[in-house]
Parts: sequence; structure tokens; C-alpha cells
Amino acid sequence: MVRWQPNAHGRLEQAAMQLYREPGFEQTTVAEIAARAGLTEHTFFRYFADKPEVLFSGAAALQELMVNATVGAPESSGPLEAAAAALDAAARVLEERREFARQRQAIIAANPELQERELKKMASLGAALADALRQRGVRDPAAGLTAEMAIAVFRLSFARWLDEDNGRRLSQLMRAYLGELKALTI
Amino acid sequence: MVRWQPNAHGRLEQAAMQLYREPGFEQTTVAEIAARAGLTEHTFFRYFADKPEVLFSGAAALQELMVNATVGAPESSGPLEAAAAALDAAARVLEERREFARQRQAIIAANPELQERELKKMASLGAALADALRQRGVRDPAAGLTAEMAIAVFRLSFARWLDEDNGRRLSQLMRAYLGELKALTI
Repeated sequence: MVRWQPNAHGRLEQAAMQLYREPGFEQTTVAEIAARAGLTEHTFFRYFADKPEVLFSGAAALQELMVNATVGAPESSGPLEAAAAALDAAARVLEERREFARQRQAIIAANPELQERELKKMASLGAALADALRQRGVRDPAAGLTAEMAIAVFRLSFARWLDEDNGRRLSQLMRAYLGELKALTI
Repeated sequence: MVRWQPNAHGRLEQAAMQLYREPGFEQTTVAEIAARAGLTEHTFFRYFADKPEVLFSGAAALQELMVNATVGAPESSGPLEAAAAALDAAARVLEERREFARQRQAIIAANPELQERELKKMASLGAALADALRQRGVRDPAAGLTAEMAIAVFRLSFARWLDEDNGRRLSQLMRAYLGELKALTI
């Protein structure tokens, strides 16, 4: 018999994030996460495939969102504008999760294995955005280059946004970084 | 007594590249590489720290070369021009090693562990170039964005160059890709 556990996902996530910070990602077992959340290991594995999944389960959804925003941008938009639409869509979601994102960043920064996974995630996002641009009829190398520029703006503005505490929105920062990029290539 | 082995480095590299293609990177032992090169395991480890090192030992030298070219670009050069100088320097070296680079690419493409190492190498190169630009007085986010653009141009033009067989030089392709990048941001 499986009993429904109110907000099991959120409780597991919160417990995992606490333990990944202290004592640390490697030191934490799934049994400990489940115990802290007042749930069973079995329940953990209904929501997450493994320990890293707590940190990376949002990535697939974010990628899909950004791909859809790119493909669905107005027909009149150039490649970089379409990519900017993807950045806007990502910012809207990430702005709701700033505290989670900050904790996540700190946990990843402390663990080389997680850093590798993050690099792979970014590479996969770049490839997906390039494909989305090709779907819009953008040719290579423009599709690949635009996707890489979008990823660069994404990564750098996101890191800055997590660092600062001045209330500036991620979407504003992304737009500012896109502007910098344009100024650099004049 | 250590006897001098004529061109041991080259022989080991060649033997390793053959075995990494067939039977494959994972299937190959250091003992087999040494045997094929007519040398000992001990000699292998005088030149390479481990199996992947055969594929990645050039990366540190390439990074140093690119950093020096960035730092040493004329004072009047803007950030992107300084990064372009780094790309030119890289192209000059890589053009001498096209066949090695092709084989290397194929071996890496067949092995996820090597792909991760390649991603890390690129991330480290990007960070080093950004630092080199900061040494020139370029501020953030311009330094980070410029470095990421250079890496994007590097990766994409390099992959294309390995694919094509029309005698186009890597340096030409890199310049063409930089031009595309500029056109995209107008």
C-alpha cells in the first residue's frame, strides 16, 4: 500500500539540500535524506533516480522550455532574438527559485563530479538550442555560434545574479549581457 | 641504466592512437601500448601520466600559447581582437597536427569519459583566456563573454575543419566564424 505523502518532493529536496551542504554531497546517503524528510528510501527513489538528480532534475524541464521559446519566437526574429526569447523564458522560471539556485551552486562548486555533470548539462543545452535554431531555418555556423553565445550569456549572468544582492532581476542582467556582447563585436 | 630510446614519445603516441581506435580506448592497456611501440611500461610512464594523457598532453601547451598570444596582443587591440590573436596562434600549431587531431576527435567521440575530460579542458581554457583578458585591463562581463565567444569559434571551426577535405586552413575558418559572429550581433 502506497500512502500519499503531502509534498514529499519538496520535503526530500529540502532535506537533501541541507545535507549536501552539511556534512556534504559525498558524505550524505539516500537513507539519511529520507530519514530527515520523515520518508522512506523507497519514496526518495519514486521522485529521484539518484543523489545528483535532486540538483539536476530541473535541467531537463528548463531545456525544454528554452527550446520551445526558441522555436516559438516570432518568425521575424533573427537568430539572436530567438535565443534571447529562450533566455527570457529561463529567467522567468529561475527568478522564482533563487534561494534553491544559490544553494545548488555552492554544492556543485564543492564537488568535481557535480561540476562535470553541470558542464555536460550546459553542453547538452547548447546542442539543443542549436537544433532549435536549425528548426527555424538558421544555418550553420550561425546556429551553433548563436547557441554558444546564448549559453555564455546564460552562464555568466546567472552566476553574477546569484552573487549580487541588489534586487536586480536575472532577466535584466541577461539583457545587459546581451548588450555587452553586441558592443564587443562592433 | 636508462637507455635513450630514439623518438620514444612519438612511437608511444602512435602505438596508443592505433590501439585507442582498434580495439578501443577502454580495451587498451599501457602494457599493450608499450609492447606495440617496442618499449617498456616504465618508459610509457616517463612520458605520460596515464592513458588519457596521450590525448590531452598537448592541451596545457596550447592553453599557454593562447594565453600568451592574448596577453601579448598589441595594446591597441580590443578584447575580441586580442582573443583572435589567440585563435591564430592555436591554428598555426593545430594545422601541423591535423591527422593526429582527427584521430583524437574520433577516439574522444567514442568514449563518454574522454568527452567529459574534453569539456573540462575547454572550460579551463575559457577561464584562462578570460583571465588573460583581465590582465589586459578588460573588465567583466566583457572579459568572460569575449573568452566564451573565442571558445565557441574555436570549437566549432575546429570541428568543421576536421570534417572537411577541401584544403581550407583552420586559420581561415576561424576568421570566417569570427565574421559570422559579428554579423549575428548587428
